Amino acid sequence: MKISDKLNQAHSSPNPPPATFSFEFFVPKTSQGVQNLYDRMDRMYDLNPIFIDITWNAGGRSSSLTNEMVYTAQSTLGLETCMHLTCTNMKVELIDEALEKAYKSGCQNILALRGDPPLDGSESTGDFKYAKDLINYIRKKYGNHFNIGVAGYPEGHPEEDSDDDLLKYLKEKCDVGADFIITQMFYDVEIFINWCSRLRKIGINIPIIPGIMPISTYASFVRRAKWSEIHIPQHFLDALDPIKDDDFLVREKGTILLSEMCKKLLDSGYVNHLHFYTMNLERATIMILEQLNIIEPVKSHDIIGGAELPWRKSLHPQRSKESIRPIFWQNRKFSYITRTATWDEFPNGRWGDSRSPAFGDIDLCATELLRQSPKKALDLWGIPQSLKELSELIISYLMGDLKSLPWSDGPIGEDTAVLVEGLINLNNKGFFSMNSQPALNAVKSNEKVFGWGPKNGYVYQKQYLEFFCHKDLIPKLLYKIDSFNNNEGESSSSVISYYAVDKDGNLTTNCKDDDINAVTWGVFPGEEILQPTIVEKISFLAWKDEVYRLFSEWVNILQSNLVEADKEKVQNFTKLIEEFTNDFVLCNVVNNDFIDKNETIFNLIEGLNVPDLN
Amino acid sequence: MKISDKLNQAHSSPNPPPATFSFEFFVPKTSQGVQNLYDRMDRMYDLNPIFIDITWNAGGRSSSLTNEMVYTAQSTLGLETCMHLTCTNMKVELIDEALEKAYKSGCQNILALRGDPPLDGSESTGDFKYAKDLINYIRKKYGNHFNIGVAGYPEGHPEEDSDDDLLKYLKEKCDVGADFIITQMFYDVEIFINWCSRLRKIGINIPIIPGIMPISTYASFVRRAKWSEIHIPQHFLDALDPIKDDDFLVREKGTILLSEMCKKLLDSGYVNHLHFYTMNLERATIMILEQLNIIEPVKSHDIIGGAELPWRKSLHPQRSKESIRPIFWQNRKFSYITRTATWDEFPNGRWGDSRSPAFGDIDLCATELLRQSPKKALDLWGIPQSLKELSELIISYLMGDLKSLPWSDGPIGEDTAVLVEGLINLNNKGFFSMNSQPALNAVKSNEKVFGWGPKNGYVYQKQYLEFFCHKDLIPKLLYKIDSFNNNEGESSSSVISYYAVDKDGNLTTNCKDDDINAVTWGVFPGEEILQPTIVEKISFLAWKDEVYRLFSEWVNILQSNLVEADKEKVQNFTKLIEEFTNDFVLCNVVNNDFIDKNETIFNLIEGLNVPDLN
Repeated sequence: MKISDKLNQAHSSPNPPPATFSFEFFVPKTSQGVQNLYDRMDRMYDLNPIFIDITWNAGGRSSSLTNEMVYTAQSTLGLETCMHLTCTNMKVELIDEALEKAYKSGCQNILALRGDPPLDGSESTGDFKYAKDLINYIRKKYGNHFNIGVAGYPEGHPEEDSDDDLLKYLKEKCDVGADFIITQMFYDVEIFINWCSRLRKIGINIPIIPGIMPISTYASFVRRAKWSEIHIPQHFLDALDPIKDDDFLVREKGTILLSEMCKKLLDSGYVNHLHFYTMNLERATIMILEQLNIIEPVKSHDIIGGAELPWRKSLHPQRSKESIRPIFWQNRKFSYITRTATWDEFPNGRWGDSRSPAFGDIDLCATELLRQSPKKALDLWGIPQSLKELSELIISYLMGDLKSLPWSDGPIGEDTAVLVEGLINLNNKGFFSMNSQPALNAVKSNEKVFGWGPKNGYVYQKQYLEFFCHKDLIPKLLYKIDSFNNNEGESSSSVISYYAVDKDGNLTTNCKDDDINAVTWGVFPGEEILQPTIVEKISFLAWKDEVYRLFSEWVNILQSNLVEADKEKVQNFTKLIEEFTNDFVLCNVVNNDFIDKNETIFNLIEGLNVPDLN
Repeated sequence: MKISDKLNQAHSSPNPPPATFSFEFFVPKTSQGVQNLYDRMDRMYDLNPIFIDITWNAGGRSSSLTNEMVYTAQSTLGLETCMHLTCTNMKVELIDEALEKAYKSGCQNILALRGDPPLDGSESTGDFKYAKDLINYIRKKYGNHFNIGVAGYPEGHPEEDSDDDLLKYLKEKCDVGADFIITQMFYDVEIFINWCSRLRKIGINIPIIPGIMPISTYASFVRRAKWSEIHIPQHFLDALDPIKDDDFLVREKGTILLSEMCKKLLDSGYVNHLHFYTMNLERATIMILEQLNIIEPVKSHDIIGGAELPWRKSLHPQRSKESIRPIFWQNRKFSYITRTATWDEFPNGRWGDSRSPAFGDIDLCATELLRQSPKKALDLWGIPQSLKELSELIISYLMGDLKSLPWSDGPIGEDTAVLVEGLINLNNKGFFSMNSQPALNAVKSNEKVFGWGPKNGYVYQKQYLEFFCHKDLIPKLLYKIDSFNNNEGESSSSVISYYAVDKDGNLTTNCKDDDINAVTWGVFPGEEILQPTIVEKISFLAWKDEVYRLFSEWVNILQSNLVEADKEKVQNFTKLIEEFTNDFVLCNVVNNDFIDKNETIFNLIEGLNVPDLN
């Protein structure tokens, strides 16, 4: 969606917010840096920014990385994204490629920039000289598909002495079709307001979005201001200078200074949206937003309430009809999006004929699959030496001490809280839990933790539990479940459904081949019943491949980072995982009675006699 | 489905019923008779017969009427149907046409009969001489598509003196591919058992289905036995002769005699299915079934519990994917099936792209549309002279005193009981109720009145109310609803949804154009959420045409039957209906909060100031 339209929508609603905001991120230098930034962007999604933007790094791998990040932000993270694009020293072919990739990712916003001239002071060597040339080109090629932003310089530009000329250039950019202006960083509100009034006078009427640079440390604050040749108001210096050696105090004070500044900007009447230069950090920006009372204090996993669906909706144009996902990838959205990227058709409430196409191959290398560098993996998860240590790892994750697992991208969600005790018991008994959700019965759709979808609706869940169980226990476990079901009624509509599959794909289930079990659904005013999360055989088998593969990649990643001292440990680990994947069977269990309490499944497993973990 | 397969399925289940049963109906002479018989077949569906059969009336309109009734039984009433087909005096073209029509209706069962020879004693003039010729022909043309039944004569055939020859002919019919035998009526169990044992001895091993003729009156009992040349056991005569003038006692005693006879048949080991010659009557047959404890005593509208969907599933092959219907035709299944007969595709949980095709025209004449002859319409509904009398008619229907209305094929359902008081109030206040359903929250799927779908599930409903409201009141009513909604939240997800449309199609609604509101749904183990009943604009507009048309046809039907004495009354009625359809607006209202009580909608309407009905 276009930024102009989103701004318009937000501020013309009956109860407009005091201000909207957006975040800028730059392209990290390492691929682990990229993974970490994705996680951060993922968390910052919860703040509900109108858009994010990704800087352009001309030439080499980093420019295609911009495209890759735009794609991931749009389609995996569901963030409305604006792509920076500079044109000096750029061949038209490169511009074409970048625009085409952005277009295909569903990106509808470009920040059109001139970019730096060649370092030796010569003329630009590319096909474009000015940003306005780029705007013209984009408009000619894509009509009105893209919303186009341009840069504004309230305090002038280091290469341009004449403020009047600068204004003239800005007016030219607007006249050829710019839709909004994002300014260079500044701290002097007076200068900014004065500049805005001049813009309006010469007929520039598009939105002016101030660029806000939070203060993280005193050194970086001074360095950036100097580099950008902007004026620092005296009261900033007065407040920060005495505490300049205490980073913590600087950030605290900076928060107050910046939020006061933002307040003035909003009061000026020229501004209703704030653009934050996050420098790929989140804390300083969030503190300002909290101080301004624009957002609620952020909770760890406050994703769901108010969302359209219980999982993050992708903004990739091909995925616009996606309304159903298997539960198995609940904690693995990156690999899910990758594996389904080439689907022409998403199962959108239409089962039967138009079943999900086959899941793509897992053509990811070990680090991409586990989303951690070898070093990070070692730091996070160590080198488990026994089943006991493996289960301790899971328990530590369940207790919130560990922020990820090889099969879970992020920390445990608030929505699992009610199950945690049962899950810990399970892991202590020699089962290894992978994924779960509690039963929900008619929870209001605007409820904080579990709610999703339009207002005045009710949402539901069936309890889901996925775990590894030793193959010797499988017959006993399934017998217990079957007996329970037989007591409850005929087997064609079992209260407890299960699938159990080993590494080689040998499957035992009490479900029919084409059963599709809706395990999350919602009832809303004037709408069909939405049923966005399902359990079914075809996708469970695809997930089985991925989860056994995750274990072998975990081995690979530790072997690749082998320190001599760890050699024996890694050998043990390799053997442990080999035995584990041979001896343990991946199971999932659904309690179809969603009105029942969450104990039923746990009780069924509880009674089993389990051999000791050494 | 084939009768053989249905019998097999029923009797090889873990808990087989003591006996299964079926009903024979003959083709009535008048079209009002046909309508009445459909209503009776509709009621007898609730007894859960394995199949029904429809006799063949060779030649003229009545044979194509057999086809028409087979079509209606299969597709509108959802009854598994067996079509009789006689072959003497029939040109092969007629046989072809009859089979083709049966095939297209989804009928898979034919009772292949020879039929009567020409009355003058000459040879058959058609292309077939014996039933076995017909069987051969059907098998050649349709392979195994049809299950084929043949007639058996335990007490011989009036035209055939030799029992051995009769057995030989039966064996021949079996050898060319008969799948089951239905016998001529009889009362002597000994003769029947003896006959069965001879059949088995000569290698006839297909199911033998005894034809049971209930005793309604003494005269008809004796006449039929004599006509069929069958033996009446002495104890029948001893029991019935003394009471022969009391029809009531005869039927009571007949029930006991016939049920004793059926018991012996079932005990003989040759029989597990009883076929009743209903003579198009229901009471005598039901009394025998009750006496045998094969069915529960029949309640008035015990349709839903145990059914696959909340409405009767059609057995027409083209409708096998039908899983969604608009609520508007809830009480008008005949016109709904007619209007959607040519649909290639039914909306089956797939909304969005594959929306329902346009509803067909209402190309039914007045009597077919109202399903009553002019005389019957007059008897049932009189000639209302005022709005007051019109509302009294509806109230009488709501109280169960009137068994149908022009817009409701059958009596008020048990499922509406909880709303009746509110509906009567509504009609007393000058609103005219058309259709409704109460809210349901998590009712067990096997519950008697409201349950449907597989076991161990839960079913839900949103309260629905459809009624006529005077056009002058519409603004006030909608304002009240809007105010209520605004108190509850933003209008994009209103708690109360409504549509109001006048005769000319002027529509007011708080729903979006493509909104589809699921108002009945069910949650079942291991399955997607089924949502078989919806409210949406496109079908509501089609229904609007039908309901206004019903009123004008009501006028037509009374005018067509004009008795001089009623002339003035019919003139008044004509004027009344003209004013009514001009002044009253068809409204439907859904309370999306299905957890709420049923009072909300009534309370909203309650507060309105309504002008007096004269």
